[in-house]
This record gives sequence, C-alpha cells and structure tokens, in this order.
Amino acid sequence: MRSALSEAERRDWLRLARTENVGPVTFDQLIRRFGTAGKALAALPDLARQGGRPIRLAADAAIDKELADGAAVGARLIASCEAAFPQALAALDPPPPLIWVRGRRELLDRPCVAIVGARVASAAGQRFARGLAAELGQAGCVVVSGLARGIDAAAHEGAMPTGTAAVLGGGVDDIYPPEHIGLYDRIAEGGCVVSESEPGRAAVARDFPRRNRIISGLSQAVVVVEAELRSGSLITARLAAEQGREVLAVPGSPLDPRAKGTNDLIRQGAALCEGAGDVLRALEGLRGFREPDRGGYDEAPATPDDALRRAVAALLSPTPVSRDEIVRATGAAAPAVFAALVGCRWPDVANCCRAAWWSQAERRNLGA
Amino acid sequence: MRSALSEAERRDWLRLARTENVGPVTFDQLIRRFGTAGKALAALPDLARQGGRPIRLAADAAIDKELADGAAVGARLIASCEAAFPQALAALDPPPPLIWVRGRRELLDRPCVAIVGARVASAAGQRFARGLAAELGQAGCVVVSGLARGIDAAAHEGAMPTGTAAVLGGGVDDIYPPEHIGLYDRIAEGGCVVSESEPGRAAVARDFPRRNRIISGLSQAVVVVEAELRSGSLITARLAAEQGREVLAVPGSPLDPRAKGTNDLIRQGAALCEGAGDVLRALEGLRGFREPDRGGYDEAPATPDDALRRAVAALLSPTPVSRDEIVRATGAAAPAVFAALVGCRWPDVANCCRAAWWSQAERRNLGA
Repeated sequence: MRSALSEAERRDWLRLARTENVGPVTFDQLIRRFGTAGKALAALPDLARQGGRPIRLAADAAIDKELADGAAVGARLIASCEAAFPQALAALDPPPPLIWVRGRRELLDRPCVAIVGARVASAAGQRFARGLAAELGQAGCVVVSGLARGIDAAAHEGAMPTGTAAVLGGGVDDIYPPEHIGLYDRIAEGGCVVSESEPGRAAVARDFPRRNRIISGLSQAVVVVEAELRSGSLITARLAAEQGREVLAVPGSPLDPRAKGTNDLIRQGAALCEGAGDVLRALEGLRGFREPDRGGYDEAPATPDDALRRAVAALLSPTPVSRDEIVRATGAAAPAVFAALVGCRWPDVANCCRAAWWSQAERRNLGA
Repeated sequence: MRSALSEAERRDWLRLARTENVGPVTFDQLIRRFGTAGKALAALPDLARQGGRPIRLAADAAIDKELADGAAVGARLIASCEAAFPQALAALDPPPPLIWVRGRRELLDRPCVAIVGARVASAAGQRFARGLAAELGQAGCVVVSGLARGIDAAAHEGAMPTGTAAVLGGGVDDIYPPEHIGLYDRIAEGGCVVSESEPGRAAVARDFPRRNRIISGLSQAVVVVEAELRSGSLITARLAAEQGREVLAVPGSPLDPRAKGTNDLIRQGAALCEGAGDVLRALEGLRGFREPDRGGYDEAPATPDDALRRAVAALLSPTPVSRDEIVRATGAAAPAVFAALVGCRWPDVANCCRAAWWSQAERRNLGA
C-alpha cells in the first residue's frame, strides 16, 4: 500500500479503470503484471492486438473532464492502493480501483455498519432503522446506506448527528430520488458521499449491483431491515456474506410480507438483530474471540484437541473462511479441524454455521 | 411394554404414584427394582424405615375415590407401560407414571404438534395460531395445547375440526380459565383432554411445569407463537429441547414485546416458523434425513467419510442426541464423527447446531 499516488499516477489509474473491458478483476491483474497503471496503459494496445481484440484506451479528454467535474463538486478521487482508501473496501478481492468521495472522508476510517432495506417500508420499520442508526452512531459506528427511499433514508437520518455515508450508483452528485436533495445536502455537508461512477453520471439499473457491493464492502456488518423476497437488499446481504462481513436481519411477523426477506436471511444463517446490541456483539466477534468466560459452556466436555480449537478460533476473521482454508492453514487433519469447529463453546458453533454459509456464498460466487 | 395392565395392577400403579415423595424418577426406579408396582408397595415401608424416613403409602380410600371420580367424568387412566399410553410421552426419561385421558385417546397416536404462546396475545398472533393449527390439522397432525387464554385457545379452535388435545394442570375436569367451558366441552367431545393430576383437583401454580412437560412430551414439535421473555411458553420450549423435540418459534418485530421470547428462541437455535410448511419440514427431518437432492449443496466437497456421515445421520431421531452418544453409537473416533456432523449439507449443519443446543439443555437439566 502506497501512502498516496502522484497526480499523474492517479490519472493513469483512472484512465486504465475507464478503459473499455477493464473491470476490477482485469484492472487488478494488469496492475499485478505491470506494476503501475502507466506501464499497463503503455502495454495494453499491443497486448490486446496480440489477443486479436484491439482495444481503445479511454480518451484523454474524457479523463480530463471527469477530473474537472469531480473537482468542481469538491469530490476527491482515491485509488485502492492509497492509504486514504477505506480499509474494509480495500480488502475486497478485487477492490474497486477508485472511488470518488465527497464530504468527510475520514468518517470511513471508523467502523462502518450498513443499514439497508425496503424502499416502501412501514412506519415501524423506518422508526426501527432510525433508532438503530442513532444508537450505532452513539456507539462510534458510521452508518452506510444507499440514499434510497424508506429504510435507507431513515438510517441516514438517524445517524446524521454522528456520521453517515451515502453510496450512490450514479456520480457523487447524482441525487436520486430527486426529493432526497435536502437529505443529500446534509450528508455531503456533515457526512460523506461515495461513488465508483464518474461525477455527472445519472445512475442506471446496472450501476446498483456495483453500488451495493461498495455499501457492504465499506462495512463490517450489514443489517437488513424489512425486505421482501427477491429484493435488492437481499443482494446486498449476499454480497456482504461473500465478502465475509457480518450479516444481520431484523425479524418480523410472518403475516408481514416485508419480513419475508429478513426472516429468510435468518433461516439461512444471518444473525437475528433486535437492536444495536446485536450489531455491536457481532462486531466484537469480528475483533477476535473472547476469552472463555466462567459461565455457561464451561462444563462442556474437553474437546479432542483444545490447542487445535484455539488455533482454529484464532484463524477466524472478517475475511471469508472456507473450511478447506482453515484446514490448510492449521496443517491438521480435516476431521480434527472440523471437530475443533464443533466441539466447543456456543459462539464458536454459531460461527461454524456462518462459515458454512460463507462457503456456500463463495461457491455461488465462483459459479456465477 | 405390556399391552395392558389388569385393573388391580393399574390400581397398584396409581397407589404407588400417589404415595408421598414418589415422583416420576423414584417411581421409575422402584418399578425397575421390584418389577411391579404391587411388589414396590409391599417393599416400600420397610425400605423407607431402613432409610430412616418412614413413609405413608397413599390411602386406599383416596385411590378408590380417584378411580371413581375419573370413571364419573368418563376419563380413562393409562399407565406409561401400557400400549395405549402415547408413544412420544412414553419416550420421556422418566415418563409420567400415569395420565388421565378424556375423549378420543386415539388422537394421541397421530403425530402431535404443540402450539403454545402468550395468554395476552395480539389479534394477529391469535389469527396466526388459528391458521397454523388448521393447516397442521389438515396435514394430519393433532394440535396439543394448554387450554389457556390467547394463543392456546386459538390453536385449539383452529384444530377443532381435525383433532386437538388439551393438557390441563388440574384434573381432566378442571376447567381453567372458567370462560373456556364451551371450548373445553367441544374438546372433550371431539378431541381429547389429558392430565397427570387426579380428577376434581383444581390446578395450582406448581402443576403447570408438569403440565408443560406433558404438552411437549406428547408432541414431536413445539411451536411458540408470541412470548415475552421469562414466560411459561419458553419453559415449554426448553422442556421440548431437553426432550429432544423440534422447537420452532414465530419471529416478530423487535418493537413488539411479545416477540422478544420467540426471537430469543430463534437466536438460541430454534427453527424459524412462518407457517405449517416449516413445521412439516421439521417433522420430516425427524423421520430421517432426505436423500441428497440434485440442487444447491451438490457441489459441496466430499466429506472425509461419507459412509460415516450417513451412519451419523441415521442415528439422529426425536430422542435427545448428545454428541457423546452419537460417538459411542457409531464406534468411530470422536473427531471423525464431529466432522461427519459438520462437513456436510446445510440441513445437517443446522441439525448439528440443534444437537449442540440439546446438549446444552441436557447439561442444564442434569445440573438442576
């Protein structure tokens, strides 16, 4: 990680990222292969010709315009290799090459929690989201959401006094829905606005999956408040699981269609969220396993290999954990490692389920 | 298991069960030691004198009165060793020595599902319980509950056309709350009423834990619909878990205090219940693991020992499963058995958590 790129280097990063057919995966491969964006840009035309698919680099004029547009709205362009790039987002594989940030970028250095949910949300759901965001804010977290109607807006409102970040599908100056202009202005002023798109761009449908990936990517935990089945919030939850982030869902009555999605997440292994305490406990879990306390599970029979159990516990982290990886990392026999995952205290067993869920998500991801 | 006791033998069982300080555990030990209740009754005075705590056997007159009272209300006394005793209840360790049953005893031979919950229930909760009971009834289940206000009454009502059983804390003729006399009459007529107490006895507080144990003991699954924290329904759920029965809970909004108990159960490992489908799937799980289907988890890496996994799956049943028992039963090494429990498809992993939960419940039980 570089502390910062020069202006010229950052411009090269942007030009490479905006070149046709260069998505985050290709970008990452090119940087690994050529060392710098400048060298990749120089090599790319020949490389593409050899591959039989000539490439047109992004036009200099377009890059100049994007940089000028960003500067005009007071936004800052940050590359994923720079120290100012949010750490959790940089941990994605691959991260977005660059983001535009408007407002208080330093908020993204604090622990971030995403709160997302239905656009057409109930009053109770919005009240819950607002209260949850306020409590998380008071506990020192920054609340991330997508500026949408309903739950998103309520979450931003609740965390406004303590710090909130809005991630947009369009440019950092693309206010959607339009009636959220007041909300947007307050976030740009006291919070921060993040986007992967070029300033001035109006969001189109295909921008939202990328937007959702940044919402979860910035966050250590994602809380879904009210979601119908097959809704965008569930996609964010899935991305969060794939990224190894904590996923929490707020339960609701089976008679309420807006609880179908969240109840289903819980069924699939998401943690049940009834308030800020649940989220903070989940974040604590991420910071490493607590020392065994003297209550409850103390009388559990000793596991076949207690040292191995400790080693396995130490291997668990916010990064996605497949069981195979744990086995490889311990160097122990697979059955013994699995035993270490089960034959232990309750939080560990819960974690083992979560690992299985991640594993499922990973497979789905690889298959897609 | 005897097909049936003679009248005299059943009278001996009753007299032994009604003798002071003879609870189900002592009763069970005495029968194991002496072979019959008659021999236990004969030996008990000497045995107690030797132990320095003289005992007074239940008075013959009281036994005669109980038998006459039961006959007067058309109830039938069934001992736990008799074929007519409900099979699930007989599987308890120890079972209640005898129960009084009024109405259609044969209903208890069908798969039973308990639906319990708050006495002061919301209209939505009652509607859900009524609908769930009706659907379970149509699917061939008998719905068991406790004749209480709120969720209990709604569950009985919903299952009235298909078959419902009310378990009482007092005698089989003790109608509480009094306004449920109409409901009681319809259950006694078309369903059945069960009690461990002597007919004519009015329920007192300490009868309810025993009543709850029978509600869960009769049932393969217990569904909790609306429950505050520290409520009686959660005790029934705990008993069900200790008895190795499926526990399901209906989620609700964190803003609803009546969802606190059910959400907490889900957090502890109870299955999330949004309708009859969830209950029926849980019952299916009890009848043995389904063959692997061709979807979803198919790409899961092969487990270290697939034959062992199948063997372990086959060992799981409605009876409480501690991991140690599974290990002993397979004769395989503990780590391999634990691995078989984790390294497999999703339903199995969920089951592994449940096993851990039972195990926790068992320990609590032993400690109490």
